[in-house]
Amino acid sequence: MSELRQIHLKESLLKANDFVASTMRDRFGSQGSFVVNLLSSPGSGKTTLLEKALPKLQERHSVLVLEGDLETERDAERIRGVGVRALQMTTGGACHLEAHQVQQTWERIADDGPWDFVFIENVGNLVCPASYDLGEHLRTVLLSVPEGEDKPPKYPKAFHSSQQMLITKVDLLEHFDFRVDEVERLAKELRPDIDIHHVSAKTGDGVDAWIESLLSARERLFAAS
Amino acid sequence: MSELRQIHLKESLLKANDFVASTMRDRFGSQGSFVVNLLSSPGSGKTTLLEKALPKLQERHSVLVLEGDLETERDAERIRGVGVRALQMTTGGACHLEAHQVQQTWERIADDGPWDFVFIENVGNLVCPASYDLGEHLRTVLLSVPEGEDKPPKYPKAFHSSQQMLITKVDLLEHFDFRVDEVERLAKELRPDIDIHHVSAKTGDGVDAWIESLLSARERLFAAS
Repeated sequence: MSELRQIHLKESLLKANDFVASTMRDRFGSQGSFVVNLLSSPGSGKTTLLEKALPKLQERHSVLVLEGDLETERDAERIRGVGVRALQMTTGGACHLEAHQVQQTWERIADDGPWDFVFIENVGNLVCPASYDLGEHLRTVLLSVPEGEDKPPKYPKAFHSSQQMLITKVDLLEHFDFRVDEVERLAKELRPDIDIHHVSAKTGDGVDAWIESLLSARERLFAAS
Repeated sequence: MSELRQIHLKESLLKANDFVASTMRDRFGSQGSFVVNLLSSPGSGKTTLLEKALPKLQERHSVLVLEGDLETERDAERIRGVGVRALQMTTGGACHLEAHQVQQTWERIADDGPWDFVFIENVGNLVCPASYDLGEHLRTVLLSVPEGEDKPPKYPKAFHSSQQMLITKVDLLEHFDFRVDEVERLAKELRPDIDIHHVSAKTGDGVDAWIESLLSARERLFAAS
């Protein structure tokens, strides 16, 4: 029997995050909360989509939004402006949310629930948030038409680690060289089973279908458990 | 006389970067190279602007582009497509470029110069690159109209640390609620002396004025030294 001589600690930070995330996922599930982690570049339309979709979802379900930003409470204020409960989490300059931040936030708000749906709007950044599990049940990456069709291969982890992709601002398609089928092909190269929706928060196109996909995913989760 | 008892190493990584960056800035200057570090979100139009501007700049000056990306050589290929020398630096997933990467790249390409202008296109990320000096003479942050006017206060370091801001894709202004004067006000709250230009790589508006600003900045640098 060999004696333990050395432990590599390089990945310990990420592993601690995974431990917290896994614990939180169980806790969210046991409290009936379906949790969505929204990832995208700055300005892809995460907040605008939530402003459009959540008042509808809230007609039949309780909804909470946790807003992640470097600074300011602007996004939480926008969400509250459409009558949805929102809590701002500012990272003080850090480029992503971590599971322990969600855990500490949850300790302070879980009792105000139960919350059927919790949306975590991550820091606007297509790189770093992809490496941090927050305990979500669904990771949704947004790609807006103005950003261009080359983003999946250039930011592979964000697309590979997401179960769902929303192509946003599709009302602008006529103004851009953006081939939807090419973007879908590139995303599916990274994740063949990715669930793709096209939405426009401006016209409302695709928003109901996205809400339906969330209701179905929540039903599947709690039917299975 | 007190004895040295403790050294705080927390910031040592950033300080090593600053040391390399400062050394490189001197080296670039002594070789006649004016270096621009371009920062923005993914899809703000950095590569498209360079494709439009650099062939003009190259009529009278030697130009080199260093492309920073997580993965792929797509952007370097686009720059080469307009006849400009470009070298791809892939970070293998890291969210920003660091000065030592630029230094190692420079060792391999400086002798092919002299280069009057070197453009470093950073990883598409409005957060992390703002913390890393690459030895540039000018840091330019791009904000595209579709991203929305709230970005300066939400990503303050990117705007505070940049001497120049380009509002890009201004041909799209009619399709968005984007008040140029409000964005300028927000950026100037973070950096009162920031030099602001409005450009459209699509129509060409503002591109010549931006090139002029680079020529003037280079002249000022080498007149002073």
